[in-house]
Parts: sequence; structure tokens; C-alpha cells
Amino acid sequence: MKKILTLILAFSALLLLSSPALAQVEVGPEVAFILNTFSFLISGVLVMWMAAGFAMLEAGMVRTKNVATICLKNISLYSIAGILYYLIGYNLMYAGVDGGFWGSLGFWGPDDAAALSGDFSAGYASGSDWFFQMVFVATAASVVSGTVAERIRLWPFLIFVVVLTGLIYPIQGAWSWGGGWLSEMGFSDYAGSTIVHSVGGWAALTGALILGARKGKYGIGGRVNPMPGSSMPLATLGTFILWLGWFGFNGGSVLALGSADAAIEMSVVYLNTNLAAAAGLVAAMIALQMIYKRVDLSMALNGALAGLVSITAGPATPSPGAAVLIGAVGGVLVVLAVPIFDKLRIDDVVGALSVHLVCGIWGTLAVPFTDSEASFVAQIVGVAAVGVFVSLTSSLVWLALKFTVGIRVSQEEESSGSDTVELGLEAYPEFGRGSQGLK
Amino acid sequence: MKKILTLILAFSALLLLSSPALAQVEVGPEVAFILNTFSFLISGVLVMWMAAGFAMLEAGMVRTKNVATICLKNISLYSIAGILYYLIGYNLMYAGVDGGFWGSLGFWGPDDAAALSGDFSAGYASGSDWFFQMVFVATAASVVSGTVAERIRLWPFLIFVVVLTGLIYPIQGAWSWGGGWLSEMGFSDYAGSTIVHSVGGWAALTGALILGARKGKYGIGGRVNPMPGSSMPLATLGTFILWLGWFGFNGGSVLALGSADAAIEMSVVYLNTNLAAAAGLVAAMIALQMIYKRVDLSMALNGALAGLVSITAGPATPSPGAAVLIGAVGGVLVVLAVPIFDKLRIDDVVGALSVHLVCGIWGTLAVPFTDSEASFVAQIVGVAAVGVFVSLTSSLVWLALKFTVGIRVSQEEESSGSDTVELGLEAYPEFGRGSQGLK
Amino acid sequence: MKKILTLILAFSALLLLSSPALAQVEVGPEVAFILNTFSFLISGVLVMWMAAGFAMLEAGMVRTKNVATICLKNISLYSIAGILYYLIGYNLMYAGVDGGFWGSLGFWGPDDAAALSGDFSAGYASGSDWFFQMVFVATAASVVSGTVAERIRLWPFLIFVVVLTGLIYPIQGAWSWGGGWLSEMGFSDYAGSTIVHSVGGWAALTGALILGARKGKYGIGGRVNPMPGSSMPLATLGTFILWLGWFGFNGGSVLALGSADAAIEMSVVYLNTNLAAAAGLVAAMIALQMIYKRVDLSMALNGALAGLVSITAGPATPSPGAAVLIGAVGGVLVVLAVPIFDKLRIDDVVGALSVHLVCGIWGTLAVPFTDSEASFVAQIVGVAAVGVFVSLTSSLVWLALKFTVGIRVSQEEESSGSDTVELGLEAYPEFGRGSQGLK
Repeated sequence: MKKILTLILAFSALLLLSSPALAQVEVGPEVAFILNTFSFLISGVLVMWMAAGFAMLEAGMVRTKNVATICLKNISLYSIAGILYYLIGYNLMYAGVDGGFWGSLGFWGPDDAAALSGDFSAGYASGSDWFFQMVFVATAASVVSGTVAERIRLWPFLIFVVVLTGLIYPIQGAWSWGGGWLSEMGFSDYAGSTIVHSVGGWAALTGALILGARKGKYGIGGRVNPMPGSSMPLATLGTFILWLGWFGFNGGSVLALGSADAAIEMSVVYLNTNLAAAAGLVAAMIALQMIYKRVDLSMALNGALAGLVSITAGPATPSPGAAVLIGAVGGVLVVLAVPIFDKLRIDDVVGALSVHLVCGIWGTLAVPFTDSEASFVAQIVGVAAVGVFVSLTSSLVWLALKFTVGIRVSQEEESSGSDTVELGLEAYPEFGRGSQGLK
Repeated sequence: MKKILTLILAFSALLLLSSPALAQVEVGPEVAFILNTFSFLISGVLVMWMAAGFAMLEAGMVRTKNVATICLKNISLYSIAGILYYLIGYNLMYAGVDGGFWGSLGFWGPDDAAALSGDFSAGYASGSDWFFQMVFVATAASVVSGTVAERIRLWPFLIFVVVLTGLIYPIQGAWSWGGGWLSEMGFSDYAGSTIVHSVGGWAALTGALILGARKGKYGIGGRVNPMPGSSMPLATLGTFILWLGWFGFNGGSVLALGSADAAIEMSVVYLNTNLAAAAGLVAAMIALQMIYKRVDLSMALNGALAGLVSITAGPATPSPGAAVLIGAVGGVLVVLAVPIFDKLRIDDVVGALSVHLVCGIWGTLAVPFTDSEASFVAQIVGVAAVGVFVSLTSSLVWLALKFTVGIRVSQEEESSGSDTVELGLEAYPEFGRGSQGLK
Repeated sequence: MKKILTLILAFSALLLLSSPALAQVEVGPEVAFILNTFSFLISGVLVMWMAAGFAMLEAGMVRTKNVATICLKNISLYSIAGILYYLIGYNLMYAGVDGGFWGSLGFWGPDDAAALSGDFSAGYASGSDWFFQMVFVATAASVVSGTVAERIRLWPFLIFVVVLTGLIYPIQGAWSWGGGWLSEMGFSDYAGSTIVHSVGGWAALTGALILGARKGKYGIGGRVNPMPGSSMPLATLGTFILWLGWFGFNGGSVLALGSADAAIEMSVVYLNTNLAAAAGLVAAMIALQMIYKRVDLSMALNGALAGLVSITAGPATPSPGAAVLIGAVGGVLVVLAVPIFDKLRIDDVVGALSVHLVCGIWGTLAVPFTDSEASFVAQIVGVAAVGVFVSLTSSLVWLALKFTVGIRVSQEEESSGSDTVELGLEAYPEFGRGSQGLK
């Protein structure tokens, strides 16, 4: 009898003890499922907002005669990216890559049957993951539009976007995030310094090379003619929007919120992202003041963006101080890189190559400094492989377009501006006809 | 003794089994309460942001001489909507409608006594629900300001907003969302293609008819004089803001986040909302290119908005492909509808009738294609009943205002613009006096 | 035997009863930890967005010739605030204040060791708290830039920001939020009417006094020359952004989301914040119409901001009607205060003193009307202590800067504008050279 009583009491005690213990340590799988899903959705919304950021940044950095066109390019590329990622991109990037080079073909569709019947092992709603991955594709495409602005024709650009977002981006993405060969090598790119930003950068670089510079940008004897952007407050607004959206970009890349560990990691990512951006801006300002004895708003804005791109490959491992350093180096790199591209006569309207390509590489290579699990070899291989692949495929597409439909507006059209030629309207019809005024 | 032991062991086993099972399958009621509440708040914030989207869209689409006034109208209508919904609207729409036509009169106040004492059966904090419903009212009013811009007087417009947000919107809302007669008929309008957007549309249509067109808009022989908007980047920004806010508009309309089912549904709503908007924009661009051999930024923006309005009545049931189709039809409809309204000499400054009224109807009628629980009859009855009610009551208010305080600015005032006349200032005082320049 | 059986059954019943009860009433500590953390992050993101709001508001309110400079000031002050709060501010404000006047010196770093090992008693990830507190510092600094715009030099302003965000703000913040002497007195300032907004206000006031007014602002015989802002839609956008961000500012100041009580409180804070802003705008419009027979956009915008500042000290305790009243008083105060500052020849470019200082004081003093735990004495002491401390220290810094590097641009530079002088560019290079036009 006593034995039984003891047994029962022990058993009950165990129950009593284990229950609260469970409650204290574990988040139930459904709660985790909800939180992971919600994190994807809210973070995705913030990244979607970056499309508006690129639109405003670029609208502020081009001249008035091309403002409406750049707005249209930005909102239509975001739209195209979403549709293509549904039609082909997602499955190409994620479905059964399994150490290889790409996934499978086919429309994407939500699949939540298991979760709907009470098995939450997938961890999140499939649609929330799709949504979050989709907005990243658009970011890569947004990078391109800034560089090749003011001289590329609208529809050929959009065709390029179709190929970039439907094929080029998903295939290289399959190598790493999709579980392909690069991920097996140990390549580490948390939120996409390489996979998103440098991809946009390489595509933009080849585009700029094949398109050529804007008429009058480069004069005789290496002279670079400034072509100041039409609206500094819009460029500033765009930068603020991008900064804001980057919390979703990097923070959502924790890919979870269903545990305290994930929440802690997300907090670290947020604060490192912010510190890197701040340091990028401040470092760019100091560098400008030292080199040119004068600061410059558009360069300072690019400094902040440089800090953001730089921290993106590894925002979870640095200490705050390391994040400041990583961002600051990015800010200085941008100040140094912009004149180099100009010296090479590579005309980059908004400085996207300096920001997204140069700092995308820097950020990726910097990961092993703070993340002991990353290796410099794998990082270099990843940067190079993506660079070669995207440069080659992008060049092919740009050249195919160039020799078929043509990619560049005519000289007269470039003078009068894309807005009147391609859209038949003016961005600011009542503001002193700026486009005629300045040519 | 053995019997007892068996009993105890069975009982304990049951406890052991049921406890983890519970933890795995169910979200506790307090957790659900928190998540539902937080979803309302965050979604509501996104919808609040749509007020800024309408303000920027409309500021970009009117001429410079009316920009400050349209800004003031938009921010003050949002303010008025909130106050009126507290004073009268919410209770009229939700308190004890019970199959009928309206609720009760009286100020709204938070009531969370049950939840504060541990009974979470209400499911969410009352204030979060009020907040989320409130921002919807403002959206309906925002639709109106765009159509009747550039010629309506400020204060009479705001008086109309008082009646719209305090009486007209809540009463028709009571019929469906408030649990009134339309909901008992089976009318289905997930996030308000009819209940929000077409309500704004009908109110705008009657306003446009009673106000008349802007001076010089329509010439002899059916000629339509274009009156291009003052700032395409602001219009683009406004569209991006609206797109962003729509994730809260449709996603928050799941009305829950406290279960995996709700999170899955929210994910589907997000991705369908995005795909419909994207498809609306792309379809509008293709339609424009085919019909006019040229795309147009403002029409493309309206295409995206058309896709958003179209999916709003039923964003949870379509497959991704169906969402693309629903949005694409909306995008084409807008391209076709805008010239029809012009042919009818109904002057709609921003195209809000084509977007919110036409696509609001389309979206509502499209619900039964993907939702087997909806019926075409109920949808048609709902669209018609709301249309008749809002048109009649709005007309009464517009006419009462017209024949008492007057609703239209004088001809001279219309020439010089509302900004100098009504506000005594200019939106862009240093930008080449656009308003004088263009007249 | 029966006794034992009874015991066992009673015990089992207790277990059965207590388990569901626990599940219904308590949120597990890890879930609470996640939700609290996520609330800090999302709310912090919204507050970060307020930096963009200030930038747009101020860019719209200054003349074109100073627009780029004000953009740069706003984005760089946000950056500096973040870095300084990491280097010195946070620990000075929060580390071991313990009833005293300040905390300790030293870099801040995340510390989540306990939570990572399963002890969630800290309640949230340390980084999320840092992030949320950091964005508040930037808000205080943003207030200053608006008042002293159009005449202060860039780098001296930024040095002031360093001191304000690294020393002045954290020290006074230690007194209350850091657990210092003011909090022990019972001073109550929920989200910072005094601690954030009036701090910015006092720093701005001393700056305006020491800098002096813009050239030509005040004529002979008390004449006030209007210097209208360059872009009303940007000012409107800025106000909408601030309004949006304020949901994070006040809502996040619940400092928790891990219980139904916190979610309910957050809901109340959201709706009161919105109603106070709405009432501030409407009251300002009515006051303007009554006093001047005409409304004014920039004053209406300030009315909304006044409502927001007014409710910030106590957004959780008022009824909706009381929130309306508190906000409405703020809106009227701003309409009355702006001409008074002008009469005193204190040149405040954007009206920040009327909004953030006057209404910051009003909001703090109004707390005891709705919060029985607050006392007028403590509120007055808090307002006065912070006012004296910030005014004295700010004056010292402004004067030190004035008599060393100098704080004011030269007369010629003021005429041509900061943009060309300090940045070597124009904000709107193609828009009719507004700066020369209007001078």
C-alpha cells in the first residue's frame, strides 16, 4: 500500500513538476508556427516597402525628365518579380535542389495540409515563406534600375527583369539558400549581401557596360560632368524607407520567431543593422569632409545604404562594435568607389554599384571575422561563383536584347527625356519645365 | 486495490497524454487573445498609413494650385472619421444590429472587464477592434476626396465626411459586418470591396455629378482636356503606400491570429493581395500598350490599385493563379472605365470611380468563383442595396449642402486654385508659380 | 484505503483543474519573452520611421535653398544618436541609477545569457530594449533641428547632437525612466511628453535664443515676415509619418505584450493616441477658422502633432473622451503659441517649440486628471527639473560652440542658402532656381 502511495505521489509530483517546466521552457508548436508565420509576413511587408524606397531614391537621383519613367520601372519590376516568382522562381530556387544547381519547374502553390490537420512541423505557413522570399527577388531587380536609369528603354528593361527574377536570381539562390552546392560548401550569406545585393550589382554592371554612359556624362580628358538628381528630399525619403525596410530584410532572415533564441537573435540583428547603417553614414561624412573638405548629401545617403549592405551577410554574429566597424568600412568604400567607377566611365546614375556590388562583396567577405563557422574560402568561392554566373547570364540577356529589340533610347529621346518619349507625360508638368531648362 | 491502482494509472496516463497533446494542438486563450489583439493593432496601423497613401496619390494627381488643400482634406477627413466613429459610428454599426438595419446610438468605449478578470472569450481587446474598424471608415472617405478634388469647397466637403463616416458608412456596414440583414442573406465581402471601396465610390460618383466637372475639363465635341497631375513621384509614392497598407486591410480582416488556421489564412491573403495588385498593374500596362501603343504611369498605378480593390472582397479563397486573374481583370477594367467616365463627362480627378467603384463591384461579384459558400444572388443584392442606399443618402447630403452653404468654389477661385483662396498659401511657393503658369 | 483514494482523486482533480486554469490564465514565460521582445522591435521600427517623418516635415517647411541640408541633418542626427547611445547613453541612463542622478559609463552590449539558458525572467531580449530606447533619443534630437533650421551650421549642429544624445538626454532620462530620483518622487511620464519632447523643446529654445532669428524674419514695428515652406505635400507626408510612428512611440511604451493586460493597455494607448491627434487637428482647424477666418495647412498639421505630444505623457489612463479633450487642448495651444513665440522674436522654423515644448508641458501636467496615481506636485517638479537642467546644459553647449567654432552661417551664406554653401548642391536643381527667385 505504502509502495503504491509512494508511487502515486512520485508520479503526481513528476506531473506537477514537468508541467510547469514544460510551460517555462517550451513554446508550443502551434504558437511557434503562428509566430514564425507572422514574422515572415511583417518582415515581408517591410521588405516590400523597400521597393518604394528604391523608387523614391531613384526618382530623386535622376533628372526631372526621367522621373516618371523610373517610377514606373520600379513599381512594375516589383510586380513582375512577384508574378515570376510564383510562375517559376520559387520552385526553381527551393524545390528539391538537394545539393545541386537548381530546383524544379512549375507554378508555386501554398501547401499547408499538414498544419491544417494539426501537424505543425513545417514551422510556418507556406505562403508566408513564399511572400518573404518573393520580396527579396524584387530587391535584386530594384538595384539594376538605378544604375541603368535615364537611357534604357522601358520594355526591354522589363524583359530583363523577367529573366532576372524568373531565372537568374532563383538559380543562383538555389545554390545557397535553396540548399545547393554552395550551401554544402559552407558559404554563409545571412540575408543576401551576395545573393541579393551583389546579384543586382552584377546585373547592373553588365547592363551599364553594354548600354554605355549617358550622353554628355563623360567629357574629354576624363572630365566627369555632374548630372545632379532632381529632388534631394525624395532621395532622402527613399533612403529612410530602405533603412526601415532593412529591419525586415535582415531581421526576418532569422527565419523564425517561435523561440526565445530566435527573438534574441532578431534583436541582435536589428541593432547591428541599425548601427552599421549609422556608422556607414557617419564614416562616409567624415571621409567626405577629409577628402573633399565638404560633405555631400547623396554620398552620405549612399554611406548609410553601404553600411546596410555590408552588415547583411552576417548581422547576427558581430558585437555592436564590430557592426559599427563593418558598416563604417562600407561607408568609406562607397566614397572611394564612386569616383573609380566614374574614372572607368561606367555610368551608374544612383551609385548602386558602389553600394550594392562593392559593399555586397565586402560584407560577404567580412563574415568570417565574426562568425567562426564561416570560412574565407567558401565566402570567396561564393562571391566569385555568383559573380561569374550573374555577369555571364546577364550579359547574354542584355546583348540579346540589344541586338533584337534594342535597349537604348535614341539620342534625341535621351535629350528630351524618357517621360515625354515613353510615357507621353511629364513628372512635374508645372515646375518650370526643368527638362527643357537643363537639357 | 488493483482496481484503484489501475484507475489511477489510467488517469495519470490520460493526464500525461492530454497535457502535451493540448500544448501541441491548442493555443491557450490568453495567447490567442494577445495575438488577435496585436494583429488588429498592427494591421490597423498599416491601414491608417493608407490615409497618407491617398493624400500623396491625390497630391500628385491634382495641379499645384490645389495640392495643399487636398493634403488638408485628406488628413482632416482621417481625423474626422476617427472622432465620428467614436461618437456614433461604431455602435451604430456593431451594437445589437442582430439581423436588422442598424445598431444603437451612443459613444463607444472600451470594455475589457471580462478579459481583465481572466475570461478571454471575447478573443481580443475591444480597443484593438475599434481601432481596426475605425481606419476602414477613413478609407471610404478618402476615396471621395480624390474624385471631387480641385473644385469642392473645404468645409462643405468636411461636413459631408461627417455624415458619411458618422451615419452612411456605419449603417450600410451594419447590414453585413455588423450582422444585419445582408449578412443573414449570405452576402460575402471579406475586407470591403463593396462595404468600403464601393461605398466611397458611390459617394464620390454622386458628388461628381452634383458638383459638375472642373472648368475646361470637357470641351466642345466631346473633347477631353488633360489636366496632368503635378507630381508623378508623389502619386507613385501614394500607390506604394496604399499597396503596403492593403496588407493590413486584407490581412487584418482575417480578424484573428490566435491559431495556425488564422496564420495560414493570413498568409494566403497576403500573397493573393500582392499577386492581384501585381497582375492589375501588369495587365493595365499591357492593355495600355495594346490600345494606345504607349503606357502611362498614372494609369499603371491605377491598375495596381484596381487589382487591390478587386481581390479585397475575397482574398482568402482564390488560388494564386485565380488571384492573378481577378487582379488582371481589375487592371483592364480600369483602363476601359476611365475613358467611359470621361465620355459621360463625369470628372474624376484621380480615377477613383474606375478603381474603387467599378473594381469594387467586380471584386464582389467575383467572390463566388472561388468561394463555394458565396452566391451570386447574395452578392448582386449586396452590391445593389449598398449602391442604392449610399447613392440616395449621399445625394441628399450633397444637395442639402449645395442649396445651403454651397459646395463649389467660384469660377475665379477655381482658376486661381483652392490653396490661395481657401488656405492663403501655396503648396510649392518657390517652384515657378506653376498655378499661374498653367492656369 | 478510502482516505488514500480520496487523497489521490482530490489530487488528480486538482491537477486536472489547475492545468487548464493555468493554460487559460497564464502565458508561458518564453512566449511572453518573445512577445515582449517583438513588441519592442516592431514599435522601435515605427519610432525609427519618425526620423523620416521629421525629415520630411522639416524639408517641407524650410525654403528650397536649405532643403538638402535639413535632410542631411535629420538622417545624420539619427545616426549619431544611435552610435552615442551605444557608446555611452544607454548605460548612463539605465545602468545602476538606483534613485540617483545617472548610471554608469561604458559601452552597451547585449546580455541574454540567462534567457539563452532558459531563464526568461528578464522578460525580453536586451537588444530589443536597447533598440526601442535608442530611437527615442533620436526623436528628442529631431525636435531641435526643426527650430534652428536655415541658419545653423551643419557640423556645430551635429556636435550639439553628440552632447545631447550622449549626455544631456540620458542623464535626465536616468532621473525618471532609469529609476532615479524623479521616479522615486512619483513623476509620471508614460512615453515622454517631458522626457523626450520637452527635452528636445528646451534644447531647441536655447538654440533659437542663442542663434537669433533668420535674417529678415522680424521687421520693424513687430512685423513678422512669413517665410513659407517649400513643399506642403512633404510637410503633410512628414506629419502622417510621425502620426504613424507615434503608435510605436506610445504603444511600445507599454513595455510588454506578454499578457492580456498588456495587450489591452496597448489597445487603449493606440486608440487614445489616435483620438488625441485627430482632436488636435480638428481643434486647431476650428480655432484657426474662428480666430483668422481661415484655416492653414501647416498649422493644422502642427495641431495633429500637438495632440500627439499632449497624450504622450499619459495615453493609457484617459477614456476616449478625455483623450479627445487632452488632444484638443493641445491643438488650440499650438494655434495660440505660435504667434506668441513670434511676438517674442524667437524664430522657430517649423513650430517645434509650440508643439513639443508647450504641449509636452501640457501633456505632462494633464496626467493627474486621468491617472489617480500621479500627483500634480511631482509632475510640476519633473517638468521644471528637466527644463532647468536641459536649458542650462544646452545653453552651455550652444555657447561653447558659438565662441569656438561658431554656430551660425554668414549673412551671405544665409542668403544663398545652406545647400550650396555647405553641401555644394541644390535640393531641386531644375525647379526654377527657387532659392534665387525668392531669396
